[in-house]
Amino acid sequence: MASIAVIGGTGDLGRGIVRRLAKAGHDVTIGSRSAEKAKAAADDMAGDTGPLGHAANEEAAQGKDIVIVTVPYASQAGTLELIRDKVGDAIVVDTTVPLVPPKVMRVQLPQAGCAALEAKEILGDGIRFVTAFHNVSAHLLDSDAKVDCDVLVFSDDVEARKTVIDLCPGMGLRGLSGGSLNNSAAAEALTSILIYMNKTYKADGAGIRFTRLTEGPAIP
Amino acid sequence: MASIAVIGGTGDLGRGIVRRLAKAGHDVTIGSRSAEKAKAAADDMAGDTGPLGHAANEEAAQGKDIVIVTVPYASQAGTLELIRDKVGDAIVVDTTVPLVPPKVMRVQLPQAGCAALEAKEILGDGIRFVTAFHNVSAHLLDSDAKVDCDVLVFSDDVEARKTVIDLCPGMGLRGLSGGSLNNSAAAEALTSILIYMNKTYKADGAGIRFTRLTEGPAIP
Repeated sequence: MASIAVIGGTGDLGRGIVRRLAKAGHDVTIGSRSAEKAKAAADDMAGDTGPLGHAANEEAAQGKDIVIVTVPYASQAGTLELIRDKVGDAIVVDTTVPLVPPKVMRVQLPQAGCAALEAKEILGDGIRFVTAFHNVSAHLLDSDAKVDCDVLVFSDDVEARKTVIDLCPGMGLRGLSGGSLNNSAAAEALTSILIYMNKTYKADGAGIRFTRLTEGPAIP
Repeated sequence: MASIAVIGGTGDLGRGIVRRLAKAGHDVTIGSRSAEKAKAAADDMAGDTGPLGHAANEEAAQGKDIVIVTVPYASQAGTLELIRDKVGDAIVVDTTVPLVPPKVMRVQLPQAGCAALEAKEILGDGIRFVTAFHNVSAHLLDSDAKVDCDVLVFSDDVEARKTVIDLCPGMGLRGLSGGSLNNSAAAEALTSILIYMNKTYKADGAGIRFTRLTEGPAIP
């Protein structure tokens, strides 16, 4: 089991990830801009998940095996700058999708190609960096529902990528490698399509499944 | 039933689309840069599909209800310039994915954001324009196999988009609206991921399915 901080862990996606990881037996710390909000969320969830750590983001990011960043796109750069000197040898997992409200059903990838490459630019080469969890429904994750969605995991660090793929089954998810970090653009863009599907085809947490794979992880 | 030209219809994806549309009962014309190659392909496929029209691309594009463009990215601009004055009121459907060989497993979206927007720039506002069929496996389409993959259909012309979505069930496919033309970026990027999946997880024509939709077309 790993020690894992979820930065922005009081938000919708953050809570879902905290919940699934804690229930899988990991040692999870909720990070928030405010230490008080982190404590309140940990207290609120503890009945369901068991005891959770809690701290301000920059403190939560220290001394962990894995640091998962779940903040809105507008807060991505500031949050990464805040934690980059704290994470040490941890694997940093960014979940950021470059949605530009209010047009969240419109694919609007940034100039750099994707939010993942913008993040990499901020973190530099010394930090082990992965992106994942772009497409899973936050509210389904934060429930006992089956999340009928594969998790694409991207990184230029093959071992770090594998570590994150291997986290997924315990969360009731199938993690699949999507290749290099640069390929995050596909999952980031897909999130707007999934939001569009929720509205257009009345889906409650639309997801994607890859078909015809003959090797790799099973669907839990 | 519609009269449909498939520009680049002698290529792998073109053949698959020709085959499925002809078997669904549409009046299909194979277009190719060379009229002779178009005729040879039509003769080759006729035993399976019944009689097919054949012509050079610029001739095939004339007088049709729908013109489907299936050429490599490197030929996209030239092909669209060749046919734009020929298509008249037809709906033009572009299948182009901006793959940059040899790194076809790497997402490399163009500066404009996606190949769809580059195409729209060439065709101008007077032509009804749709993109689709980015993710389906060419060799599965060109067979009787079940293609376990949804077709995302993008357009700013809602009626034209619906026409293309409605073509899909006859082809054994589920067509889904992906929203505006700009959103094509998601499907274009996904193709590199699918090629990566074929290699990484030993898939023979990996596809994607959208999950948890409660309305819209059924999976054929």
